[in-house]
This record gives sequence, structure tokens and C-alpha cells, in this order.
Amino acid sequence: MHIINMTQALKKLQNFSVKLNSNRLFELFVVSIIIFSALVVGVKTYNISAGVLQIVSMLDWVITIIFLIEIIIRYIAEPVKSQFFKKAWNIFDTLIVVVSLIPIEDSEMALLGRLVRIFRVLRMISIIPELRVLVNSLVRALPQLAYVMLLMFIIFYIYAAIGSTFFNSINSELWGDIAISMLTLFRVMTFEDWTDVMYETMAVYRFSWIFFLSFIFFTAFAFLNMVIGIVVNVLEEERAKEKLQNAQETGEIDLKTLHEQLLNIQQQLKVRNSQS
Amino acid sequence: MHIINMTQALKKLQNFSVKLNSNRLFELFVVSIIIFSALVVGVKTYNISAGVLQIVSMLDWVITIIFLIEIIIRYIAEPVKSQFFKKAWNIFDTLIVVVSLIPIEDSEMALLGRLVRIFRVLRMISIIPELRVLVNSLVRALPQLAYVMLLMFIIFYIYAAIGSTFFNSINSELWGDIAISMLTLFRVMTFEDWTDVMYETMAVYRFSWIFFLSFIFFTAFAFLNMVIGIVVNVLEEERAKEKLQNAQETGEIDLKTLHEQLLNIQQQLKVRNSQS
Amino acid sequence: MHIINMTQALKKLQNFSVKLNSNRLFELFVVSIIIFSALVVGVKTYNISAGVLQIVSMLDWVITIIFLIEIIIRYIAEPVKSQFFKKAWNIFDTLIVVVSLIPIEDSEMALLGRLVRIFRVLRMISIIPELRVLVNSLVRALPQLAYVMLLMFIIFYIYAAIGSTFFNSINSELWGDIAISMLTLFRVMTFEDWTDVMYETMAVYRFSWIFFLSFIFFTAFAFLNMVIGIVVNVLEEERAKEKLQNAQETGEIDLKTLHEQLLNIQQQLKVRNSQS
Amino acid sequence: MHIINMTQALKKLQNFSVKLNSNRLFELFVVSIIIFSALVVGVKTYNISAGVLQIVSMLDWVITIIFLIEIIIRYIAEPVKSQFFKKAWNIFDTLIVVVSLIPIEDSEMALLGRLVRIFRVLRMISIIPELRVLVNSLVRALPQLAYVMLLMFIIFYIYAAIGSTFFNSINSELWGDIAISMLTLFRVMTFEDWTDVMYETMAVYRFSWIFFLSFIFFTAFAFLNMVIGIVVNVLEEERAKEKLQNAQETGEIDLKTLHEQLLNIQQQLKVRNSQS
Repeated sequence: MHIINMTQALKKLQNFSVKLNSNRLFELFVVSIIIFSALVVGVKTYNISAGVLQIVSMLDWVITIIFLIEIIIRYIAEPVKSQFFKKAWNIFDTLIVVVSLIPIEDSEMALLGRLVRIFRVLRMISIIPELRVLVNSLVRALPQLAYVMLLMFIIFYIYAAIGSTFFNSINSELWGDIAISMLTLFRVMTFEDWTDVMYETMAVYRFSWIFFLSFIFFTAFAFLNMVIGIVVNVLEEERAKEKLQNAQETGEIDLKTLHEQLLNIQQQLKVRNSQS
Repeated sequence: MHIINMTQALKKLQNFSVKLNSNRLFELFVVSIIIFSALVVGVKTYNISAGVLQIVSMLDWVITIIFLIEIIIRYIAEPVKSQFFKKAWNIFDTLIVVVSLIPIEDSEMALLGRLVRIFRVLRMISIIPELRVLVNSLVRALPQLAYVMLLMFIIFYIYAAIGSTFFNSINSELWGDIAISMLTLFRVMTFEDWTDVMYETMAVYRFSWIFFLSFIFFTAFAFLNMVIGIVVNVLEEERAKEKLQNAQETGEIDLKTLHEQLLNIQQQLKVRNSQS
Repeated sequence: MHIINMTQALKKLQNFSVKLNSNRLFELFVVSIIIFSALVVGVKTYNISAGVLQIVSMLDWVITIIFLIEIIIRYIAEPVKSQFFKKAWNIFDTLIVVVSLIPIEDSEMALLGRLVRIFRVLRMISIIPELRVLVNSLVRALPQLAYVMLLMFIIFYIYAAIGSTFFNSINSELWGDIAISMLTLFRVMTFEDWTDVMYETMAVYRFSWIFFLSFIFFTAFAFLNMVIGIVVNVLEEERAKEKLQNAQETGEIDLKTLHEQLLNIQQQLKVRNSQS
Repeated sequence: MHIINMTQALKKLQNFSVKLNSNRLFELFVVSIIIFSALVVGVKTYNISAGVLQIVSMLDWVITIIFLIEIIIRYIAEPVKSQFFKKAWNIFDTLIVVVSLIPIEDSEMALLGRLVRIFRVLRMISIIPELRVLVNSLVRALPQLAYVMLLMFIIFYIYAAIGSTFFNSINSELWGDIAISMLTLFRVMTFEDWTDVMYETMAVYRFSWIFFLSFIFFTAFAFLNMVIGIVVNVLEEERAKEKLQNAQETGEIDLKTLHEQLLNIQQQLKVRNSQS
């Protein structure tokens, strides 16, 4: 009898959770809590008095508890429990809440605690469907760029190896080893005071401008190729969508169908001509 | 009798206004007055003698009065008076003129007066139809970017929170609070002396280059996505226009129509075959 | 008798000129002379001994005379003389040669002489058809941008007026008058040390970052619009070309033609059905 | 008998090579050796102890020998030997290995040796098909840009000639001769501290901003044109591919075919009408 009561209570709780989860007001409430948590994060970066700080850290705990409750409601509302943790955004949300719950004492963990509170702002993306779609489409676009990025990395690696071989003695802060050289080359790629870097090396190696200009040319060209690749890709997807829509509108009729109909008519006419 | 005269006079005035308003020469006159007012604004930024200044402020009043008369003519010419203030450009024009009319005395209001005189140049947009179309299309494109901009704001906010948490002690002028940090990050996004900002933090946190490079990567990627979004949008609009035009040219005939005609012919032939 | 001889001689000369003008070898010779003249221009920028300088200025005269002869040949080869000076490139070529012929003495004219010799390199464009096509297409693209450029100029003008009103007292070298302010704003648009300009004004007006960020936003947006405008334009031209080609390939047949043929067949079948 | 044995042995060796060459594991092994050689190149840029250096140079020789064996296997696997050196990548691979084999003693050759070891990383491109395709497509795109690049070179040359004529006396480090001036102009094009260059010349020639702004305008315009050229090109290629695919799907049926079929039907109907 006791067990039945509990299962009934659980059922009621689940129904309630499902209703709550799909409620627009509840969603709005969660979004406003996230925005509020973002503001709390922002406030903490200002010089604030001890009193305000205490209020802020209290609010922090309130937010954490609301987030915890929200996750639990979402979990209960999920009909198939095992599916819950298969969604990346659910795992992200749970992790953020769980780490927020850990009491922070020593300074190193305190840093992690602060970081986690900052990353709560990312929950904005997990809760607003349009942003989720946007981020998903960005992530999907990445693998297509993999080979262009590999190519760019190879260009960077070779130029960095050459750079740290020749220019190390000129300025070891910029060309000390291959890692620093790659950072310097990234700076050159963004045109950030790149002539300072070049003039310094040109004082020793007169023709080192070839090194820099060819590097700029290669990376700009590869970068351009990457951008064009994405544009063409997006346009193709759009066109494929449009084509599909066209096909559905015209009931999957294409020139081939018409051609076959005409062949059929010609056949019929031939039969009749031979009959008469 | 007096009232009838007045209504007749008003009618005449309206007819005159409508004629004047659609007159090319009058339009040209208004445009040249706007250009002249722009020149007056420009002249005032130079060091000019008190005498010239007096002439300039007299010209200022002449321009204001001409603008006032022009607005009144436009208002009279409007057949449905209530429609006049439903157009954003009309409200803008009226506001500019009204504020220009306020006599300026104390220094704070003087500043507003100067600003209003500068914003008169914007009337150029309200009077030249091609510019109005251009600005309208720019404004229409904005809401489509809303979510990408929100995403970018989230990225900025998180990075600024991290930045002001870790780098505040290094350089409080750049990373003092979350607002200043966002400005600093905008600077990094424009590649403006961003390595100076990075090298400074790298002296304390060796791996802070990850912070900057990942930020550049994310914002560049989101920005690229935004640009591509606009391009695809514009191209689609163009294609939709072209499609519509095509449909009108071919008299709304598509493959489906042809298919149905052929089915009709096949039916007729079948009927005949079965008859004979 | 004497006159007939002369006209005959002139005819012969013209035939010879036409042949020469369309000769590939002659064209190659002219191109190589232009390249040579470019090299001479380049050599003069180096510190060269008086002897070399004398040789160079002798070569200069040789080039001028060759160019003069070439222009005369082209003029004689032209069948309708009045058409010759209707082509912009011919006028340009003639002008360059004529100014080169003026003997230079005083220093001011010497400068003009040097400039003209530099502009000879532009003859490369007038002589190579592919470059001429490229430049013509660039020039044709300009008027389409006229209104976006006007819009950008208005944005610049208003911001420059505001800038020189408020920031003149902070740094008169950057914001002295409206012209200097526009140059400073162009610098801000290219992101060249723009934060230095901003930080300086922010020390006085705390919220002047709004001025700079909004300016960057507006100009970037207008610029983007301009670029997209050109891209869409080019793509449309390409599509129009392709469409025309398609129409020629399929013998101007479109769906409307097919529709009318089918209507004709249906009519014929109806006639027969009613007959039988 | 001896000879037969040898030819048999060679045949076996070739079969073995062909098998090995098309083996996925062997390919993976070669890729990992290339990555390993890249790491060795990277390690050498760090300050390493003499002991590690000795190990590294031993590993260097191991890599060289593995590469040598791999090239030989590839050569043996090639059915038509003369075709082997017609592929650019094979020549590149062989050259890299051969130069690596030369024993290095004097310092100048040592530099070449180090460079060759760095360029080994490029073998990544020659071994991964996707990268090879990418690079080939980049190289194929270059000639289409030839004329835009020539145009840009002409613009650079003329501005550099003008610059070194007028500004040489102001700053000979930036405008000393035409070559240095072109480098300075490239710097201006990348917006790298270009205002410093401009302000310096404006102190002498007040209107020199026209020189810089027009240069920026021309190069930006030509560059934009180049980018659009590539985009249009890529999009056209994609469209041509799609069109071909469409044609194959619908069995090369176009509107013309349908038109001819309809003409045929109309003819048949006419014949019957006249018969009956």
C-alpha cells in the first residue's frame, strides 16, 4: 500500500514536471535567472564592499539551488531516463550545477568555482533554441574545414621552423623556439605590428622580407579558400533545400516524366495509325 | 462668409503645396539647402573670425526657417493629416526643426543645439529616395542578425568575466571590470595592438595565449557566420525575385501544368482507342 | 601629278601602318618598350652616378620618340580620323607623349616631367587588352556604388562634425577641423591605432567609446553592404549570361512554347472527337 | 639461368612493392614517420643538451633512410618507370631525400641541410590525398588571377615611383628606392602603422593624404575584385558540375527534346486529320 502511494506520487510528480517543463512562463523564469546569474558574475568584477559581496554570494547559492531544482525537474520530465545524459547540453548543464555545489575553500578550487559560475552564462545557449541551432550549425561546419586547417598548420609549422632557425639569434623573445615562433607568425598574419618584426630581421638578413611576404600570401590565400569553401557549402545547402521544396511543390515531376508521357502518346498514335 | 473664404484659401494653399511638393525644382532647392547647412556645420569647425561666425549663425537661422516652411508645406500637402506623423522620417524632420527653433542660452543646451544642427545633414537621407531605400534595407537586415549578435555578446561577456577575474591584477586599466574588459576584447577583435595586451598577461600566466587565440577564433567564426548569413539572405531574395519574374513571363506555367495537359491528352486518346 | 603621288604615298603609308599595327611582333615590341621605360623609371629612384644618369635621360628621349612614332602609326592606321580621339585610351596615350616632349628646365616643370614619365607605365593597361577589359569593368562597377559611397560620406561628415566639436580641445592635431577629423575617422575605420585615439578622448568624456564603436559599426555595416552589392551584381550578370546561352542552346524554347503546343494538340483531338 | 633468377626476383620484389604501396598500414606508417620528422624539426629549435642533440641527429638519419626506402619502394611499384618522374610530387619527394643524404660539413651547407629537413614536413601534403587535392586546386586558381595581380603590380610600381620621387628626402628608410617604397606601400595596404607613414609626409606635403587614400582605395578595389573573381569562379564550377549531374539524372533530356516530340505528335495528328 505504501509502495503504491509512492509510485502514484512519483507519477503525479512526473506529470507535474512535464507540464512545468513545457510551460512558457517557467522557461521565461529560467532565462531570467540565467541573465540574473550573468549580472551577478558581472557585479563581482567591480570593486564592491564586503556587505554587497556577502549578498552576492548568497544570491549565488540561491541561483545554484534554482538551477539544481530545474535540472531535477527536467530529469523527472524526461520519459526515458537513459536518454537524458545522451544530450550534450544536458551533460553540460548538470556538470555546471554539480561543480557549483562543491563547497570552495582553498584558493585553487576557488578559481575553478569562479570559472564555473562564469560558464553558467553559457546556459543561455542551452536554453534558447535559436542559439542552440546556431551553435550546432557552427560546430557542424568545423569538420569540413579540417583539411584547410591542417594545411594552414603545416604552413605555420614550416615557417616557424625556418623562423626559429634563422631569427633566434636576432630576437629570441619572438623566435626563441617553434611554439613562440608560431605565435609570432599568428601575429604577423593579423598584421599586428608585423613590420616591426620584419624590419628587425631585415637588418641582419636583407632578403627576409621574402619570408614574411610569402607567409602572408600563403596564409591569406589558404584563409580565403577556407572562407569561400564555407560560403559555397552554405549556398549549396540552401539550393538543395530549395530543389527539394520545388520537387515537392510540383509533385516530383521532372522533364523525364514528361518525356515518358510523350513517348506513350506517340506509341498510342502509332498504334491507331497502323489500325486505320 | 468669412469661414468659407478661409476654407477656400486653405484649399488653394493645399493645392499649391501639393504642386510645390512634387515639383523637381523645389526638391532640388531643398537638397541644396541641406548641402548648404552641411557646409555651414563644416565651416563652424574651423577657427573663424567673430564676423564670419555672426554671418554663419545668421545663415543658421535662415536655414532653420526654410526647413520650417518646407515641413509646413509638406504637412499641408499631406491629404490625410494623421498619416503624416506615422512616417518615421517625417517625425525625424519635424523634431530636428523644432529643436533648432529653441533659443539656446546656457552652455549645456548650446551643445544640444550644435548637435541638432549637425544631425540636419541626415535630412539628406530623408529627402533622397535612393538613400532612404538603402537605409531601410540596412535596417531590415538587422533583426536577422539578432541571434548571432546575442551569441557574440555571450562570447564577449564570458571572456570579459574571465579576463577581469584573472588579469585585473596585471593591468587594471584594461581589465578593471567587466565593461572595460569587453572594450579591451573589442580592441583585440580588431587586432589593434592585441599582442601588447597578450604579452603583458603572458608574463604572469604563460598559457594566456590560449585565452586570446580562442577568443579571436570564436569571434572571427561567429562574425564570418554573420556575414555569410547576410550574403545568403540577399542572394535568396534576388533569386525569389527572379523566380517570380520568370513565373510571370511564362504565364505561371510550370512542369505540373504540362504534366496535367499530357494526362488529359492520354485520357482522350484512350477514350478514342476504346471507342474504335 | 605631284598631288597624286602624295596621296598614293599616303595610301601606301596607311596600308603599311594598318599592317604594322595589327602585327603581333610590333605589339610585343611596344610592350617591351613600355616595360623598359618602367625599368628606367625604377632605376632613377636609386642613387646613380652622373654618367648612368646621362645614359638614362638619353634612353628617356629614345623611349619618348618611339612612343611618338607609335602614336603616329596608330593615328594613320585609324580609318576614320575623328574616331581616334573619341577613345579615352588614345587621348591618354597622346597626352603622355605630348607632355613628355616638352623640354624641361625649371624645377617645377621638371617634377611634372618626372610624373609623366612614371605615368607611362600606365600605357601597359592601354596596350594589353585583358588589362583594359579589367579596368573598364572596374570603372563600370563604380557608379553602382555611388549611393552607398554618398551614405558613407554622410556618416563620415556627421561623425567628423561631432568629433571636431567635442574633441578639438583634447587633441587639435586629430580633431582640429572637419577635414582632419574625417582623416582621423578614416584611420579609425582601418583600425590603425584607433584605441590610442579613443583612450585619449575617454579620459575627458567617459562615454566617448559609444562614438567610436557606433562609428565602426555603421561604417563596417555600410562597407559590408557595398561589398555584398558588388558580389550580387557580378553573380547576376553571370546568371544573365548563362541564361542567354541556355536560351540559344535550346533554340529559345521555354515552357510557354511547350504549353502552347500541348493546347494545339488538345484542340486537334477535341475536333476529331467531335467529328467521329 | 642466373639472369632468369634475377628477373624472377625482381618481379617478386615489384609485386611485393605494389602490395606494400597500396597497403593502408604502410601508408599510416609513412605518415607517422613524417609527423615524427616534423617533431624532430620542432625539438631542434629548443635549447637542448648535447646528448639529446646527438639522439636527434641519429633519429634524423633513421628518418632519411626510411624515406629513401619508401621512395625506392614507390619507384619499384611504378609499372612504367618513365612516368615516375613526371609527377611533380615524386620529384619533390626524391629531391628532399637526395639532399638529405648529402653529408653536411661546412656551415653554409649545414643551413641547406636544416632547411631540407624542415621541408620534409611538406611531404605530409604529398602523402595525404585530400591535402594534395586542396593544394592542386589552389595552384589551379592562381593563373586566373594573373591579370589582376599584374594590375596590382602596376598600381604598386607607379605609386612606389611617385613615393620615392617625392618622399625620399623625408624618410629614406621607407622611400629610399622603388623596391623599398613598394615594401612600404605593402605595409600601407595592410594598414600596419600607415598613419605614421602618412603624417610624416603630410608635415612636408600637406596634400600627401591624397596619395595614401587613393592608393588604399585602388588596391582595396583591385583586391576586392580579385576575391569576387575567385568566388564567382568557384560558384560557376559548382553550378557546371550540378548541371552535368542533372543532365545525367534526367537522361540528357532538355526542353528541346520535348519540343521535337510534340512537333512529331502534331505532325501525326495532322496526317490523320487529313486522312479522315
